Amino acid sequence: MKQEVAIGIDIGGTNVEIGWIDSKGQIVEHQRVKTSEFDTAKELVDLVGRMILDTNAKLKDKTVLGIGIGAPNGNYYNGTIEYAPNLNWTEVIPLAKMFEEKTGLPSKLTNDANAAAYAEMLYGGAKNMSDFLVVTLGTGLGSGIVVGGKVVHGYTGFAGELGHVIVQENDRDCGCGRKGCLETYASATGIVRTVRKMQKEKGLPVDDNLSSKELYSRALKGDEVAVKAFEYTGEMLGKSLTGYIALLSPEAIFITGGLAKAHEILIPEINKVVDKHSLKIFKDTCKILPSDLIEQNAGMLGAAALINIG
Amino acid sequence: MKQEVAIGIDIGGTNVEIGWIDSKGQIVEHQRVKTSEFDTAKELVDLVGRMILDTNAKLKDKTVLGIGIGAPNGNYYNGTIEYAPNLNWTEVIPLAKMFEEKTGLPSKLTNDANAAAYAEMLYGGAKNMSDFLVVTLGTGLGSGIVVGGKVVHGYTGFAGELGHVIVQENDRDCGCGRKGCLETYASATGIVRTVRKMQKEKGLPVDDNLSSKELYSRALKGDEVAVKAFEYTGEMLGKSLTGYIALLSPEAIFITGGLAKAHEILIPEINKVVDKHSLKIFKDTCKILPSDLIEQNAGMLGAAALINIG
Repeated sequence: MKQEVAIGIDIGGTNVEIGWIDSKGQIVEHQRVKTSEFDTAKELVDLVGRMILDTNAKLKDKTVLGIGIGAPNGNYYNGTIEYAPNLNWTEVIPLAKMFEEKTGLPSKLTNDANAAAYAEMLYGGAKNMSDFLVVTLGTGLGSGIVVGGKVVHGYTGFAGELGHVIVQENDRDCGCGRKGCLETYASATGIVRTVRKMQKEKGLPVDDNLSSKELYSRALKGDEVAVKAFEYTGEMLGKSLTGYIALLSPEAIFITGGLAKAHEILIPEINKVVDKHSLKIFKDTCKILPSDLIEQNAGMLGAAALINIG
Repeated sequence: MKQEVAIGIDIGGTNVEIGWIDSKGQIVEHQRVKTSEFDTAKELVDLVGRMILDTNAKLKDKTVLGIGIGAPNGNYYNGTIEYAPNLNWTEVIPLAKMFEEKTGLPSKLTNDANAAAYAEMLYGGAKNMSDFLVVTLGTGLGSGIVVGGKVVHGYTGFAGELGHVIVQENDRDCGCGRKGCLETYASATGIVRTVRKMQKEKGLPVDDNLSSKELYSRALKGDEVAVKAFEYTGEMLGKSLTGYIALLSPEAIFITGGLAKAHEILIPEINKVVDKHSLKIFKDTCKILPSDLIEQNAGMLGAAALINIG
């Protein structure tokens, strides 16, 4: 009998990761394209769909069951991406249907952070947990909420928009058109804004092409502005997560995504704030942890889980 | 065959409501004592336990199945009340066990707001909903979160502490020992604090023995300070609920409790803020509604549901 695999597509602000995943979470094949290559969703489906058909044709000893997609502002119920502020797609896009039509394979879609939560639950650090949160710190900030062992989709299918909870009114402009959303502080782009603001305030030259990766290496070397920027990012995250803990009392909160590579600096800062602000009944009840998965793989593993676990 | 009933005890900041409830949610018998009568939990269990035994003896045609208790800071897993800031009980109190020992009846306990959520789901406006929130605006602010048709207890059993999410840092002192919790603004006591603050700021005489009920009747008569206080309360609630909607995307949010008697003034204010602050994907997706139940009954109906639905 042929081995069964599912395709997981993780559409991030920077890269589109495409993985062929078996039922145990092993990656059989992995491909990648840049998100910025595509002006429209149709172009993405055309190219990625062709890559999938070509690769499937080569994987003669596998049965490909279907396609799972994780994408920002993905709607599980409708298989659509709707008004995604961090992609250039400002309408409602029936992406699951478009992939079905292009490839002939059954396709399902969910929010990228929900996909990360599925991955953590099936293959990562949340294997024995039924209440946890995964926070993806990438270009933006997403979250996948798990309650009672199930990923929460909510009434609309859009639950988990922690990144767009307003934390500082009338402050930083957000891609969503509002101001002061958590992701304008706690994300790869958010921390860069924090550094530029600090540089301006201190009369220092303002770095134009700064990456969160470069900031992390500066912080490790003790650069004052970089260290302070991580502290501030951890503080903003910590305050929001303290509120989340009061609401849903998770066993753990996992941080993942590009910025979470700096978890050794970020997690102690988050813990400091959570410890200080938590209600007595929640003290020391929730662990803040790095994801147990290789970051670039988590999204596609979780997306494939939509097919692998049904 | 004798009719089966469950006892529901709702321990509020002001009253303890005790109801004998049948499986259809009909109240067979209803008694009440003042919470302030008791200095300790033991005194409460002694008196209420005796009332229960006396009443059960008179209800010869009923079989009493057990006792469900709804209480602030109630822990469903442990049957305990832990460090309840709005009662005078600052320790961990095994209330379910104490009632069992006093009455010989099996007893279960949950948070008072979780009890309100059970009641709304079984007998109220949330009968056909699987994702909703109940906010109790009483002496404090509690919330019962329902996700996928189940009341959320979280890892600790304490989920739903929306009232203790910090909304204004370093601002009003809260009974929990911290500052700026939502319930210091949005509760019967919170709105009174708002009015006193406004009176002070305007150089008006400060009302000492003000109730939220009196404020409601003043607001209905057009009293400027009272109207502004309700607007401010609605605004604070609206901002917090906008964040909640981004996280869990409920179908509806029900407000209940003493202050929610003013829902005709509060709900339009909440809606105004939710409409203004919501992310596009959540616009007009969540209804803000008054509870469909008689307020004084909701807690005990929900508490009894712990026994009636198991």
